[in-house]
Amino acid sequence: MDKHVDVAIIGAGSAGLYALSQVRQATDRYVLIDGGELGTTCARVGCMPSKAAIQVGEDFHRRGLFERMGIEGGEALSLNGPEALEHVRDLRDVFVDKVLSNSTDNMDEEFLAEQARFLSPTELQVGEDRIQAKAVVIATGSRPVVPKAWEAFGDRILTTDDLFELEELPASMAVIGLGTIGLEMGQALARMGVEVTGIDQLDHIAGLQDPEVRQVAVDILGKEFPLWLGQTADIREEDGRLRVTAGEQSVLVDRVLAAMGRRPNVEGLGLETLGVPLDERGLPAFDTHSMQVGELPVFIAGDVTGERAILHEAGTEGRIAGYNAVQERPLAFKRQTPLAINFCDPNIAVVGSAWNDLDPERIAIGEVKLGPLGRALIMGKNKGMIRVYADKDDGRLLGASLVAPKGENLAHLLAWSIQRGLTVFDLLRMPFYHPSIEEGLQAALYDLRGKIARQPEGPVELERL
Amino acid sequence: MDKHVDVAIIGAGSAGLYALSQVRQATDRYVLIDGGELGTTCARVGCMPSKAAIQVGEDFHRRGLFERMGIEGGEALSLNGPEALEHVRDLRDVFVDKVLSNSTDNMDEEFLAEQARFLSPTELQVGEDRIQAKAVVIATGSRPVVPKAWEAFGDRILTTDDLFELEELPASMAVIGLGTIGLEMGQALARMGVEVTGIDQLDHIAGLQDPEVRQVAVDILGKEFPLWLGQTADIREEDGRLRVTAGEQSVLVDRVLAAMGRRPNVEGLGLETLGVPLDERGLPAFDTHSMQVGELPVFIAGDVTGERAILHEAGTEGRIAGYNAVQERPLAFKRQTPLAINFCDPNIAVVGSAWNDLDPERIAIGEVKLGPLGRALIMGKNKGMIRVYADKDDGRLLGASLVAPKGENLAHLLAWSIQRGLTVFDLLRMPFYHPSIEEGLQAALYDLRGKIARQPEGPVELERL
Repeated sequence: MDKHVDVAIIGAGSAGLYALSQVRQATDRYVLIDGGELGTTCARVGCMPSKAAIQVGEDFHRRGLFERMGIEGGEALSLNGPEALEHVRDLRDVFVDKVLSNSTDNMDEEFLAEQARFLSPTELQVGEDRIQAKAVVIATGSRPVVPKAWEAFGDRILTTDDLFELEELPASMAVIGLGTIGLEMGQALARMGVEVTGIDQLDHIAGLQDPEVRQVAVDILGKEFPLWLGQTADIREEDGRLRVTAGEQSVLVDRVLAAMGRRPNVEGLGLETLGVPLDERGLPAFDTHSMQVGELPVFIAGDVTGERAILHEAGTEGRIAGYNAVQERPLAFKRQTPLAINFCDPNIAVVGSAWNDLDPERIAIGEVKLGPLGRALIMGKNKGMIRVYADKDDGRLLGASLVAPKGENLAHLLAWSIQRGLTVFDLLRMPFYHPSIEEGLQAALYDLRGKIARQPEGPVELERL
Repeated sequence: MDKHVDVAIIGAGSAGLYALSQVRQATDRYVLIDGGELGTTCARVGCMPSKAAIQVGEDFHRRGLFERMGIEGGEALSLNGPEALEHVRDLRDVFVDKVLSNSTDNMDEEFLAEQARFLSPTELQVGEDRIQAKAVVIATGSRPVVPKAWEAFGDRILTTDDLFELEELPASMAVIGLGTIGLEMGQALARMGVEVTGIDQLDHIAGLQDPEVRQVAVDILGKEFPLWLGQTADIREEDGRLRVTAGEQSVLVDRVLAAMGRRPNVEGLGLETLGVPLDERGLPAFDTHSMQVGELPVFIAGDVTGERAILHEAGTEGRIAGYNAVQERPLAFKRQTPLAINFCDPNIAVVGSAWNDLDPERIAIGEVKLGPLGRALIMGKNKGMIRVYADKDDGRLLGASLVAPKGENLAHLLAWSIQRGLTVFDLLRMPFYHPSIEEGLQAALYDLRGKIARQPEGPVELERL
């Protein structure tokens, strides 16, 4: 059967659903196509279940502070692994149900539960059907990378696709790859009582390029579970368990969490029929401001792009792609200030320009270690560091890296300020409540302020009426 | 002995010390005068020990969520009152020591541990000495109000001056006055196991004027301890305990925390010699932008003003007063966007224009209840409400009231945005990370957005490049 539509969206994940929300405002001639598991990566195996596990780990971990606060009996607390995992799944199911009930559950023939394959930029094979579409949005997402050789170890190699399905916590686990999910889950599982070893072939964690913040983060997290950095991991079978070796170090574990990144889902999509060059991952070039692929009526959004694999960016890209899919001519939109948060404890966040992209000759850096900060001391979380980067001439904020309690919230303040083009002086005139973690940011800004060439007159905190 | 100085600062609390920091940049001819207890209200009996107590209450209270998370043994946890109180004092002492070591500990003859009394706008009697000062800063702070009649009940009536000195937690307590400190301490003590009854003669709590947010806050907090609102409390002796009655309701308690506000410290200051009118509290009029009293070389800052009794405002006022005390002509400065946070759980915050000052005809209100919000559900804190007010014509943000987990952090985002004059549309273009409490604010902003007359073209989240 041939079907003619204005827009075909391939992928019913977050990016595809955001695209759909825009498309629907312009036309009811659309199809949403997804032959895989529904409910979004975010809700099923990503943001949501990981945060639920982190919360359990955090609450259980706080017992270490109970004695100093006069709370007795903390040493008798124990974690029931199966129940904790069930709690995580219960919450996950709530989130997945919510996604489904807001999307495909209420769709009729506009939803096709099939794989899609391009025949040309405006024609798709979807199961038995041919879809002719004036525009197509590619939002097929990504999946975890697992080295071919590790497949031999069967279900002892986990990815986030399986992790939250576990019925019991393993006694020991190696987490290989300490980017966002590896670090978050490594710490959460360690706090739940799993003997975790964290391994990464790079010498940093959570994508922290700033060497000072990276060192503080490694020192803090490394106290909770060993971090083996800068060595590739090798796995072999030993007495029915897995021997994981990285450089000189080696550990025997029950399970391995492979968290070495994700690969765009492009196999079988027929992108070669688009008539544009594909890179080594099989991806076509696209414009990050219009999400358009070349000059084609084809748009791409979300994790499949291999960039900014973060929900709110998938939302922005989906909106841009969906909006442009129904315009006569695609428009270019500003992208948001980069904001990446790792919900480990303390949070790690990177905001604005990446450290490696900054010109050391042109920036000033303000920094603070959180040690003596009042509120952090009260929270029992007085480890951390905040570094803020600004143009050293005029004090305009460019970026920040931090490892800090409530770092997720500081990161929003910083991202919003950078997006508005504010300077360190603008920020020092803002209210900082006492006692708050925001005062830690304030201390970093005071440090930064002294390093800027052009200073305002009078007290820096005061602005003339 | 007569002493001539450029500036005399009366009061070595937060406002006085901030004033001093400005004065020192211009002259070393100054005196700081304080005949009372040193260490600041904030560190000794205010912000800091209250937050320490709240943290203990919060950590102990979380045990109620342990079972659903698979953490076993929570029902066997107990709070050792004397140890919890000692922990609070230990932290307090750290903060007080830090204040002292950064201020009066290192001062020599510039610090006078005496009471000061004006003889004229430029002359002070300080113990045996006369100080002639070119300018004077009044920063004498405030003290808790206790009705005269209650003095008969002796040390069973507590204020924040004594609360943190308790060696043991009382079994029962009435907290009379549910503004900032009363509500915070009422909840913290209830969570620590004290049978608390909260009473206020007004029908609101934590200064919440917005009736919707007030109701949600009363519902949430009222589940932890009874709140008797809208009735004046009366106390009488009964069998060695205190019978506290408010309207039809009555309770027998061991102690009463009087938290009915604070009174400016002006007695004996000789303000009548300034030659300007004094109000019924004994305070002269002053300019909130210059902190100048009339046309005199006299400035006033901090809690003694009877306004904005919040540390960061004392800091701003102290800076303005200190800076102006050493200028030829006082300058007028902008004040920060109002920001008031109550650290009860969930936090209550009021930002920007007060509800009662808004013109209902000219504003639009965006609101959200936090119930189904992902992150709040994960945290086990899915009760709350956020209301944001904007100009209904152009969407410029005017203020907000909220009761929400991490409300302290949302309040900073809102205050900074309001101070920069941003609109609801500007904010919807900002990154909101997932899953975060900031997404609750985002939901309120979406609700608000639809109620604004002048809408931008295209998707509200996207800005043309």
